[in-house]
Amino acid sequence: MYLEKINGPEDVKKLTVKEMSTLAEEMRTALLKRASIHGGHFGPNFGMVEATIALHYVFESPKDKIVYDVSHQTYPHKMLTGRKDAYLYEEHYDDVSGYSNPHESEHDHFIIGHTSTSVSLACGLAKARDLNGEKGNVIAVIGDGSLSGGEALEGFDYAVELEGNLIIVVNDNDMSIAENHGGLYGNLKLLRETNGQAECNLFKAMGLDYIYVNEGNDVASLIEAFSKVKDSKKPVVVHINTLKGKGYAPAEQHKEQWHYSGPFDIKTGKPLYGEFGEDYSSVTCDYLLKKMKEDKSVVAITSATPTVMGFTEDKRKEAGKQFVDVGIAEETAVAMAAGIASNGGKPVYGVYSTFVQRTYDQLSQDLCINNAPATIVTFWGSVFGMNDVTHLGLYDIPMMANIPNLVYMAPTTKEEYIAMLDWSIEQNEHPVAIRLPGGEMISDGKEVTKDFSKLNKYEVTEKGSKVAVIALGTFYQLGKEVVDDLSDKLDTQATLINPYYITGIDSELLEELKKEHDVVITIEDGILDGGFGEKISRFYGPTDMKVINFGLKKEFLDRYDVNEVLKENHLTKEQIVEDVMALMK
Amino acid sequence: MYLEKINGPEDVKKLTVKEMSTLAEEMRTALLKRASIHGGHFGPNFGMVEATIALHYVFESPKDKIVYDVSHQTYPHKMLTGRKDAYLYEEHYDDVSGYSNPHESEHDHFIIGHTSTSVSLACGLAKARDLNGEKGNVIAVIGDGSLSGGEALEGFDYAVELEGNLIIVVNDNDMSIAENHGGLYGNLKLLRETNGQAECNLFKAMGLDYIYVNEGNDVASLIEAFSKVKDSKKPVVVHINTLKGKGYAPAEQHKEQWHYSGPFDIKTGKPLYGEFGEDYSSVTCDYLLKKMKEDKSVVAITSATPTVMGFTEDKRKEAGKQFVDVGIAEETAVAMAAGIASNGGKPVYGVYSTFVQRTYDQLSQDLCINNAPATIVTFWGSVFGMNDVTHLGLYDIPMMANIPNLVYMAPTTKEEYIAMLDWSIEQNEHPVAIRLPGGEMISDGKEVTKDFSKLNKYEVTEKGSKVAVIALGTFYQLGKEVVDDLSDKLDTQATLINPYYITGIDSELLEELKKEHDVVITIEDGILDGGFGEKISRFYGPTDMKVINFGLKKEFLDRYDVNEVLKENHLTKEQIVEDVMALMK
Repeated sequence: MYLEKINGPEDVKKLTVKEMSTLAEEMRTALLKRASIHGGHFGPNFGMVEATIALHYVFESPKDKIVYDVSHQTYPHKMLTGRKDAYLYEEHYDDVSGYSNPHESEHDHFIIGHTSTSVSLACGLAKARDLNGEKGNVIAVIGDGSLSGGEALEGFDYAVELEGNLIIVVNDNDMSIAENHGGLYGNLKLLRETNGQAECNLFKAMGLDYIYVNEGNDVASLIEAFSKVKDSKKPVVVHINTLKGKGYAPAEQHKEQWHYSGPFDIKTGKPLYGEFGEDYSSVTCDYLLKKMKEDKSVVAITSATPTVMGFTEDKRKEAGKQFVDVGIAEETAVAMAAGIASNGGKPVYGVYSTFVQRTYDQLSQDLCINNAPATIVTFWGSVFGMNDVTHLGLYDIPMMANIPNLVYMAPTTKEEYIAMLDWSIEQNEHPVAIRLPGGEMISDGKEVTKDFSKLNKYEVTEKGSKVAVIALGTFYQLGKEVVDDLSDKLDTQATLINPYYITGIDSELLEELKKEHDVVITIEDGILDGGFGEKISRFYGPTDMKVINFGLKKEFLDRYDVNEVLKENHLTKEQIVEDVMALMK
Repeated sequence: MYLEKINGPEDVKKLTVKEMSTLAEEMRTALLKRASIHGGHFGPNFGMVEATIALHYVFESPKDKIVYDVSHQTYPHKMLTGRKDAYLYEEHYDDVSGYSNPHESEHDHFIIGHTSTSVSLACGLAKARDLNGEKGNVIAVIGDGSLSGGEALEGFDYAVELEGNLIIVVNDNDMSIAENHGGLYGNLKLLRETNGQAECNLFKAMGLDYIYVNEGNDVASLIEAFSKVKDSKKPVVVHINTLKGKGYAPAEQHKEQWHYSGPFDIKTGKPLYGEFGEDYSSVTCDYLLKKMKEDKSVVAITSATPTVMGFTEDKRKEAGKQFVDVGIAEETAVAMAAGIASNGGKPVYGVYSTFVQRTYDQLSQDLCINNAPATIVTFWGSVFGMNDVTHLGLYDIPMMANIPNLVYMAPTTKEEYIAMLDWSIEQNEHPVAIRLPGGEMISDGKEVTKDFSKLNKYEVTEKGSKVAVIALGTFYQLGKEVVDDLSDKLDTQATLINPYYITGIDSELLEELKKEHDVVITIEDGILDGGFGEKISRFYGPTDMKVINFGLKKEFLDRYDVNEVLKENHLTKEQIVEDVMALMK
């Protein structure tokens, strides 16, 4: 086996082209086995095996620096740069993250997990090289799906201004996570069909040199192309035509489904773990499809992650023109939602907490200054969400909830969510965002009759005295447990409050609490800095009320154990009760 | 005079082409007079006079909806849509804002002040039209300078997916605020030189139809072009070649200088008010130019607003390769800074507070997760900054200061600023941002010896008891006045603290304050929600310390009187002292 002997790029360079093709087969076998047991980003890595071998054959990493966009094609790179064990041996699978990471290897230059950043980052590496009078190639590898993101297009536009070496490998597998959306994909198609010869060429229109490689899964063709551009004195695009999921029939056929995969049976391609039941994704889709049928102006918007809203391929078909995928283009998604809402439409934009970060200015300017009554649903804004450092859902409260005019809401159950969503779609006064709780979806069947148009009206769900617990979103259930325990310990019923609104203070209720309470605590599912609890602390700052804010410390976590993190942040029932009791003495 | 009789687009339609040309002259005369007295965005409006007349002649506003990117070309539009008085009569000059505004007229559809949003917003208007089965044209007007922004490029890419009417007028005057930067401008030049015939065409590569108008300041040619695309069933770009500043010789010659202008003498073009002295812009440039000479790896970065960093044309020349203008592309600016810092360069990105909003995700992902030791300088983050609703500098603290790893600092004087800047450039541990104070620059000549690498160490500048005043950045001077007054009233010296750091708490010092203080107040120049003061309130929440946070209410202000706003927010010395004294009783 060649792969076992690859301890770094220098070992790749020793192989013949034929041996490299065998190596590619070995890498695919290892990738397949690992994915079937461990899960991960499947399709994009399978398409990039040969190109990665060729890159390491031609270039001298780490002196030549390769930057992989969004990192979804870094597994072959990791295999060839001293990290093969993490792909060969099950006991080492967790030695590496799913993302490029300089702490793992000198062959990685950034921690990257969001799309569309590689060209701009590479421009920075190249600029520093030139300022310091150093040599070496800088190579950005970007998938076609990432091209629709604003930062990527900005980077392509800027690149020519560098006036120095920069090689941009466009890995074109004709797919984003789902199918591609946007006019530029027509141009990529034209270029593929004309063997790169079409005069109308997006990359040339951006001032860049360009070469095309039709056989993007053939090591010899790739080596030839990369050798041609090596040490280029100006920016050049190498457009390579690859096959997503190459080498595994189910993945070649069902590209969207195999972009990312959990553990599965290699023979059949079937997932090892059964379908999950109802969740916030399916509930969102079911509700919206029904609503769309009643009202032609309702439209769901995604930025290339339709399934987080439950819109699988069949559901998208069902929604027809009432479903919009703008591609990886969160800024345009929010601006479009503002435009639709301003012209009599009812848009609902569903987005991961970690990706809503990509559109702060549009939230502020296009949406909130214009008070456009669009709805945003934030998924996975929770400590129980994704746990890679680049995909955390812990920061959306400080980012969004401090933008004027936005009404940011936190339901605690399915029923509250649907009631808020329905209210938001039908109202015409405010931009509204809804932050879905983390953990398992709770459905209590209770009818929600609350009038959400009375903004910032919290609800006392258990009336008591001494201690009041304001428990937001995810942590409402925890708050309830705390209240129960406190009531026992204090021999008095404590007060439980569901605040519903993240963006404002119910000052009337907070005033009222002063009468019979000595301590108010807040619990929220996100970092404390700039968060919900601090607003309560500020309110009570000049008074005798004691306040404790529970939530997460401001830091970047990575691949964490959620229970450990909860403990470290005093977010268990026992710790909270203990902290409160300490204050009562 | 025709202009006096124009009360809406219907009056434009009554004119002959010859009369429209006379109208154009009248409009320019009015614009020139108003600009000479009132100031405003000069160049972009002068170039768009004929195109605006032609748009209103051909289309039926407001049924047909025109969206103007960044609003810098809306003055002619306002003149033709019932707001001519604000351009004809000095006493009415302030009746209108400098930006498009639906509260002023049904012919405006959004409040817009940031660039690159028009196409995506127009896509939203068009989508709502189509969902509701309505008719009418949607027209986005975007200047060439705005094309480099990610949101604009996303919008162009998405547009073809609409499969319905959308007309994008690209107003190409071959200038951004300063000269354009980016490869796509080479393509615009090629298109201008080939009368729009070049095969390689950025817009066609995005899947869009395209027509070119060489005589972009000729009413008849424009009418012909717009008539051709009216009621188009699919998105089409109308690329018009205009002259920035047309009709006023000094502005035609010195385009950058005349992008925006204060009051000036029409005959000579000379500004009425003298040059300002030393300010944070000039100080920044002077420091950086000196530093660049000592160290070739120091590089200043701007996103199309070089002069805010003091880099006028001559200074840019002096800096040479050590000055980078990425064009209007804040995301790429931050990513590049991260890339440069990661590869041994020393980047300093200078940006307006209102525009740093455009790059939250890059701050978080590219910069802070990677702990890249780049420096950002935030200009005009202050209530004393720009006062149009789209250009406020009141929100950068909640947006930036809650991102993990970032060290956000607030100097109070020129000397502190330069010391921080120098420290930041030389250190290798943290991404650092520096928020310049508002109001007049204070230079006290004091040597700054503080070691800024000891993060979050506040400084007690006046040691006292009972009340401690933590006064951040701009408001340090106000804090000093408050302390002086309180010391008189309480007959005890109060404590004054310069916190320097926005992003963290000096818990040791705050603990210490408990011993001899009953009240701690914070004063900050920005909104309170998610801000600096709330962190202090949270810290003291469980204790007996009384805390009041002074700062601004979370809201969108527009064209405000700064003294009124300060009063409304209890930010005068008298009010603060009164509030504190009320608490001492």
